[in-house]
Amino acid sequence: MASAGLGALLVCTEPEVRYFTGFHTPFWQSPTRPWFVVVPSAGKPIAVIPSIGGPSMSSTWIDDVRTWSAPQPQDDGVSLLTECLREVAGPEGQIGLPMGPETHVRMPLNDLDLLRASVGGFVDATDIVRSLRMVKSEVEIEKHRIICGIVSDAFEALPSILSIGMTEREAFAAFRAEILKCGADDVPYLVGATGPGGIGDIIRQPSDRRIDRGDLLIFDTGSTHDGYFSDFDRNFAFGSAPRDAADAYAAVWEATEAGLGACRPGMTTTEVFTAMNRVLERNGSIGNDVGRMGHGLGMQVTEWPSHTASDDTVIEENMVLTLEPGLNWAPGKAMVHEENLVVRSSGPELLSRRAAATLPII
Amino acid sequence: MASAGLGALLVCTEPEVRYFTGFHTPFWQSPTRPWFVVVPSAGKPIAVIPSIGGPSMSSTWIDDVRTWSAPQPQDDGVSLLTECLREVAGPEGQIGLPMGPETHVRMPLNDLDLLRASVGGFVDATDIVRSLRMVKSEVEIEKHRIICGIVSDAFEALPSILSIGMTEREAFAAFRAEILKCGADDVPYLVGATGPGGIGDIIRQPSDRRIDRGDLLIFDTGSTHDGYFSDFDRNFAFGSAPRDAADAYAAVWEATEAGLGACRPGMTTTEVFTAMNRVLERNGSIGNDVGRMGHGLGMQVTEWPSHTASDDTVIEENMVLTLEPGLNWAPGKAMVHEENLVVRSSGPELLSRRAAATLPII
Repeated sequence: MASAGLGALLVCTEPEVRYFTGFHTPFWQSPTRPWFVVVPSAGKPIAVIPSIGGPSMSSTWIDDVRTWSAPQPQDDGVSLLTECLREVAGPEGQIGLPMGPETHVRMPLNDLDLLRASVGGFVDATDIVRSLRMVKSEVEIEKHRIICGIVSDAFEALPSILSIGMTEREAFAAFRAEILKCGADDVPYLVGATGPGGIGDIIRQPSDRRIDRGDLLIFDTGSTHDGYFSDFDRNFAFGSAPRDAADAYAAVWEATEAGLGACRPGMTTTEVFTAMNRVLERNGSIGNDVGRMGHGLGMQVTEWPSHTASDDTVIEENMVLTLEPGLNWAPGKAMVHEENLVVRSSGPELLSRRAAATLPII
Repeated sequence: MASAGLGALLVCTEPEVRYFTGFHTPFWQSPTRPWFVVVPSAGKPIAVIPSIGGPSMSSTWIDDVRTWSAPQPQDDGVSLLTECLREVAGPEGQIGLPMGPETHVRMPLNDLDLLRASVGGFVDATDIVRSLRMVKSEVEIEKHRIICGIVSDAFEALPSILSIGMTEREAFAAFRAEILKCGADDVPYLVGATGPGGIGDIIRQPSDRRIDRGDLLIFDTGSTHDGYFSDFDRNFAFGSAPRDAADAYAAVWEATEAGLGACRPGMTTTEVFTAMNRVLERNGSIGNDVGRMGHGLGMQVTEWPSHTASDDTVIEENMVLTLEPGLNWAPGKAMVHEENLVVRSSGPELLSRRAAATLPII
């Protein structure tokens, strides 16, 4: 912040507020109230929040908790926040706010316009928050390791839980229950699909379709332990595996190996992308809709950076990343693999238990 | 839209996009990609979305799905959206965007600034979306009825599930599992606390504290069926009920009765607030931090309107509302009740099964 000339930094979304304060609650589901944290260039952050959050915020490491009774549409924290920002930044000091990719400002636009006018504008502070959050501490890595272990256990139990004749809806419910039974705090993200011989849309919610012999199934879940996510998928076939699907599975497994080989400090996300993409192209890829082949992982199911052809982020030690190569081998037929890892000085350390090298059959 | 002089309406958050399209996915957990829907003043909405959502969006009632390969930080949908907005609104037509209370714009602020400049600004369309979403269809009400029934079942099972000696963490996990077993799709919101003789902070996550004789427990959950929420709580005592807590329970139960009596078409949210608040003041309320005594319920765990001293929204038939009186009878001692209802021409129809009139003891 000092080198960027910032006197104060304003954050206002769930992961940003939690990152700087430890404030952890699902209360963010409610869109009614805005929440703010002001980070000074030296000293502890200050919370400027609705009074309903006062007791919880006061139990974190934050000492200075300023509250107003919300909802109060006439002035929902705007004047209290303006005063705090000016006090922290000084009358002429610049104030940072994340305004770049993967960020948004969680307050009504009318109030944001008032705030910008009253504090004299913001400068983009995305890089400050991004660079902090992309590299994890050992404490954060341990939370990832725990949830990735739990979800690995749940995936390994699937062959004894799922069977031909179940509906997608029943399969989703059984998998969600298994993840919780294995010890996850929550399963905020669960998508999947089944289909005869191939699956086109991999971010679907369950239908009442019954699983049939020859079907493929994909489950992709972001589950949490103490607010930190896993994010990986697994694929299965029922009864027998169609030859082209088994080949596609082997190709994405091999692409993941290539990604693991490239995931070292000093390499870039683009080099990781290229290593995986080369394998997919060699195996008949017709391109896909996903737009990237993996990403950062943390307090959100996806975080910066992205493995794309142009992202070019330099990989650093203790980044937690996913590798997610997807092969579309025919229209409406996609096979996506995903693994989670932490980057160590010597290379990747897997957090998810590596998928089987050949398509598992239930 | 026509009477407000709007040629197009832009929405970009999960509930708004789902409301107009039916697009339902937990993929919104990922902050990476923005999603847009453009509603014309006549005809079907148009989706302007990342290509990863193309197949899912095409399976809704939307015909016109325009995609770009995201993430693409250089131009993450901004030029595609600008073109669509200008095409729909006409070269001089005004474009609406929700900018008021309980809304936010889910895209990077840098991109929003570019978009505002390129389309010539937005006018606030909060009231259009608010007035539509506040009054529910019978199809929506049925989804609320199903999830409220499921959660009522799970709360009624609690006395046979919880016991003295369990940790809060174990109690949360057991309750979450019970709600899912009873048939909920998901439990996105679950807060609660235990405490000897009273509870101060009611939006907490679980700790490793063990439940002891004489403790109070509150659970408050927003669970979902097909993307529609319940939102109500229940209170219990373990072993025996402290007299002051039992009295506070009776007071909030009675306040809820007063709220039910005031919840009719033509009354206002402020009159509902006042009816409940009068009972609380008569019972020694020292004020509370919540800021309101209930709210709208729908695709989000809280929606407009709010029962406050100044909200003054006129209550209409088929609004789905919560009543949530909270009594702080001493510092750090709060008792909050909550029920869910749909407003009918003759008065409220309860969706949650009414709480017991006296504090239940486990």
